[in-house]
Amino acid sequence: MFNTVTIVGVGLIGGSFSLALKDYKLVNKVIGVSRSGATAQRALELGIVDEVLPLEEAVQQSDLIYLAIPVDVTLPVMKTILDLMNSNQIVVDAGSTKQALCKLVSDHPNRGRFVASHPMWGTEYSGPDAAVHDAFRGRTCVICEREKSDPDAVELVEKTYSILGMSMVNMDAESHDVHAAYVSHISHITSFALANTVLEKEREEDAIFELAGGGFESTVRLAKSSPAMWGPIFMQNRENVLDVLNEHIMQLRKFKSCLEKENYDYLQELMENANKIRRILK
Amino acid sequence: MFNTVTIVGVGLIGGSFSLALKDYKLVNKVIGVSRSGATAQRALELGIVDEVLPLEEAVQQSDLIYLAIPVDVTLPVMKTILDLMNSNQIVVDAGSTKQALCKLVSDHPNRGRFVASHPMWGTEYSGPDAAVHDAFRGRTCVICEREKSDPDAVELVEKTYSILGMSMVNMDAESHDVHAAYVSHISHITSFALANTVLEKEREEDAIFELAGGGFESTVRLAKSSPAMWGPIFMQNRENVLDVLNEHIMQLRKFKSCLEKENYDYLQELMENANKIRRILK
Repeated sequence: MFNTVTIVGVGLIGGSFSLALKDYKLVNKVIGVSRSGATAQRALELGIVDEVLPLEEAVQQSDLIYLAIPVDVTLPVMKTILDLMNSNQIVVDAGSTKQALCKLVSDHPNRGRFVASHPMWGTEYSGPDAAVHDAFRGRTCVICEREKSDPDAVELVEKTYSILGMSMVNMDAESHDVHAAYVSHISHITSFALANTVLEKEREEDAIFELAGGGFESTVRLAKSSPAMWGPIFMQNRENVLDVLNEHIMQLRKFKSCLEKENYDYLQELMENANKIRRILK
Repeated sequence: MFNTVTIVGVGLIGGSFSLALKDYKLVNKVIGVSRSGATAQRALELGIVDEVLPLEEAVQQSDLIYLAIPVDVTLPVMKTILDLMNSNQIVVDAGSTKQALCKLVSDHPNRGRFVASHPMWGTEYSGPDAAVHDAFRGRTCVICEREKSDPDAVELVEKTYSILGMSMVNMDAESHDVHAAYVSHISHITSFALANTVLEKEREEDAIFELAGGGFESTVRLAKSSPAMWGPIFMQNRENVLDVLNEHIMQLRKFKSCLEKENYDYLQELMENANKIRRILK
């Protein structure tokens, strides 16, 4: 499908995307671009990329450029790439926020060559060692502002994601960011905050280590996520995240009030309502 | 090891304990006791129990009586069982709170025949169909007030849990309830509240369903847990749970304040601190 693909950011998402392209034989050569020499070296060692080059050289040789870097860094780097590109190349980003980026590039002469995508997959790990094979199968990929991408570009990107096992959803950038705040960003904040709660209050760490069952691990594992990746996401999506966070604090206060007032009936009602999430979770 | 064991409450925990006793050939016959005829019938169908009897008859025939019912119901039922028991029988409870129960039975003439245990395992499912084989392997089991149980009783219970693959930890009931609030109870409250947050604000359920990645499922899955089981736990442990909940709301407010003030440095600091949970999670 592609002769040469450049992956900008060879970590969890970029690394997994590269592995998938190779596994499904969709690419001849993958070039890695990274700000960190150590990261680039590790990606080479792991066979995630075949070569490491500076951004400009890499872009010149590539049919497809795939950005999977912190969303704040994506903005200037995307601008640079669009300036360098010709009309046969395609650039895709995989970031967790879409509004700021789509707005930034909206008037660029090469806007049509850009496909705004968000493959809804991730783990709490980061860096090239976090990349896994067949990461995207069975997950959803959001494409934003599909109509602003050239048909050949967006169709090829959709075909690629489909081969990797993803189902496609179209959404405007604003809706994407609202939904992402609910189904992803708030989970990370509650998990970070829960970790801080336990670390603050529970000094006997051996006790946590020994006692923590599956429930604790499950709700707190996202607290291991990369601050460099998540800080910019929360900042770019701060209005939506604040909306959800305020609602979440209000919901927690309801539980608090039930306990304080020993209002058992309302406590049951809150939990029974929460059980409705069964309809949504697979 | 046992001739006849009675399981009071043949759901997630009681059912899994029964399956484990059978799988490891530690029992000849398991009698089930349940308030619900349908539940008892289902436990029979699934081979979790061999017979269903009323509590009193079941206790009379049993070497070991194992209670795995909501912690509020445990209190009167434990009292009834202790009144019925002779000095060769053992009664064990598997509840998530220990202080109220240990206090209740502290002066009972048969206190020595009681072993207060909390096997630290569970899932968000409930009822006989939630019971699984080999559930306890690799998990920790807390024994409270070990010194108040007769040596033969507590040693046999510990030996049983050990054969099922659990490592044993001793703790006073008060410490248990503090730690349980941190490593288990708060996770359930945040998960219930997170589910309510999303259900309240996000009316487009199809969007959640399609977009929710592994992170969302992981933080919210405990919201599927049984209100009948968890309400009494929160109530019996309300002071500890309120302590942790207040701290958690305070930690969430720190994230909120960072976002409101666009204080990126402090946001990074909060997340980096949360990353320390890596030390604790396996």
